[in-house]
Amino acid sequence: MTATSVSSVRVRYAETDQMGITYHGVYFVWFEVARVDLIRGLGFSYRDLEEKEDLRLPVTSAQARFLKPSYYDDVLEIRTHLAELGGASIAFEYEVHREGTPGALATGRTGHAAVNSLGRVRRFPEELRRRLSA
Amino acid sequence: MTATSVSSVRVRYAETDQMGITYHGVYFVWFEVARVDLIRGLGFSYRDLEEKEDLRLPVTSAQARFLKPSYYDDVLEIRTHLAELGGASIAFEYEVHREGTPGALATGRTGHAAVNSLGRVRRFPEELRRRLSA
Amino acid sequence: MTATSVSSVRVRYAETDQMGITYHGVYFVWFEVARVDLIRGLGFSYRDLEEKEDLRLPVTSAQARFLKPSYYDDVLEIRTHLAELGGASIAFEYEVHREGTPGALATGRTGHAAVNSLGRVRRFPEELRRRLSA
Amino acid sequence: MTATSVSSVRVRYAETDQMGITYHGVYFVWFEVARVDLIRGLGFSYRDLEEKEDLRLPVTSAQARFLKPSYYDDVLEIRTHLAELGGASIAFEYEVHREGTPGALATGRTGHAAVNSLGRVRRFPEELRRRLSA
Repeated sequence: MTATSVSSVRVRYAETDQMGITYHGVYFVWFEVARVDLIRGLGFSYRDLEEKEDLRLPVTSAQARFLKPSYYDDVLEIRTHLAELGGASIAFEYEVHREGTPGALATGRTGHAAVNSLGRVRRFPEELRRRLSA
Repeated sequence: MTATSVSSVRVRYAETDQMGITYHGVYFVWFEVARVDLIRGLGFSYRDLEEKEDLRLPVTSAQARFLKPSYYDDVLEIRTHLAELGGASIAFEYEVHREGTPGALATGRTGHAAVNSLGRVRRFPEELRRRLSA
Repeated sequence: MTATSVSSVRVRYAETDQMGITYHGVYFVWFEVARVDLIRGLGFSYRDLEEKEDLRLPVTSAQARFLKPSYYDDVLEIRTHLAELGGASIAFEYEVHREGTPGALATGRTGHAAVNSLGRVRRFPEELRRRLSA
Repeated sequence: MTATSVSSVRVRYAETDQMGITYHGVYFVWFEVARVDLIRGLGFSYRDLEEKEDLRLPVTSAQARFLKPSYYDDVLEIRTHLAELGGASIAFEYEVHREGTPGALATGRTGHAAVNSLGRVRRFPEELRRRLSA
């Protein structure tokens, strides 16, 4: 078993480009929205983790494959799951879907280090780790 | 006399939208680039002002008029001047031009408060004020 | 009576800056989300208006006042109303609120021209005009 | 031998996040700037390739590793090279450097399809292919 979540985003005009599709870089912003939703689904606020637990999860790697375009005003579903949980690192995987279109529009993965506000590697709060790996 | 500067930006693909022009919100980012150039031209780094002088200039108002579109890969010139210098506030005005096109593509103005890192109103460093009003 | 709507946005990490608040330029993106919601509330899709009715509403002016900062993960309410409806122009006004904080965090206004895909001024589709001014 | 280029970008305030570093998604925008510079260095304008040659290079994959943070106002050097040239596909690789800091801050790769304005796969213009593989 592994932590999963489903997020919804609607493509903004600002997120399109002159090719008439969503600019590819925007998917990484959506992935950010999606993993924070996953963490929220476990009962944690990433904002509180930063402010109260001195935990930060800077992105150490990011990748995506863009299989089919998405368009302005599309309502997209982002399916996220925990892909890896290390001592001081974590990775998430993502699939972007649009209702009525078979297969994913895009897939991706982000890797993160667990650090404190000084940038030093640290362990995850115990309760967060427990729920992530439940 | 008043402090002025000229900045250059090239329109990025990410900055276009599906109307095939620059997304209007991007001009406010360019204004930020432009006023920091103006400050640099006076011999100051805005980064150093934040880090070493504990000065921040959050935007309290922003406005723009969009007269003609700009397009992907256009090289634009942003002409900036100091519009107002108060005890703890400052305003800049901007004109965006493209070589060969008469008149401004856009004009704008931003107002800023002078605050410290705690968000408290403060005076400008004396030397900065002096050069701004030279 | 005038057309109004209420939109909800949650501040993304990508939308913050190193001052620890929402970057001011992001509010103009939210205004875009908000006016499209208003149009949707009247029974129209802005996407369909572009694709099927050959109507575009490029921004001709934009302004905002930033009264109090918003922060990462804040859930904000954007209250939008139609401010002006001309023959081939339209303007919207916006207020950004956060539950529990009295007064608006920000206010704004955008003006738009009604043009076709060639950039020529045109009238609004009759039914849209009717509902906007109902 | 392979096509290479060096680009320069200065980190904008809008590109930072509340961690006080450049938001990771921004690197993909810089990569776009960088590969267009590479193409320009070969004597082609990507804009003209779109407009006059009906060539588009949508991103089909993108990845990056973030090794060290970059900060507001940093002047960064992006070293780009052609990594792969297929019949109707192309890939670029990137390294982001900051003067005085040994090693890359980030590395990345983007893959692209060659399509026309209808999204159909097509060959590269012969002269572009020749110079890319020179």
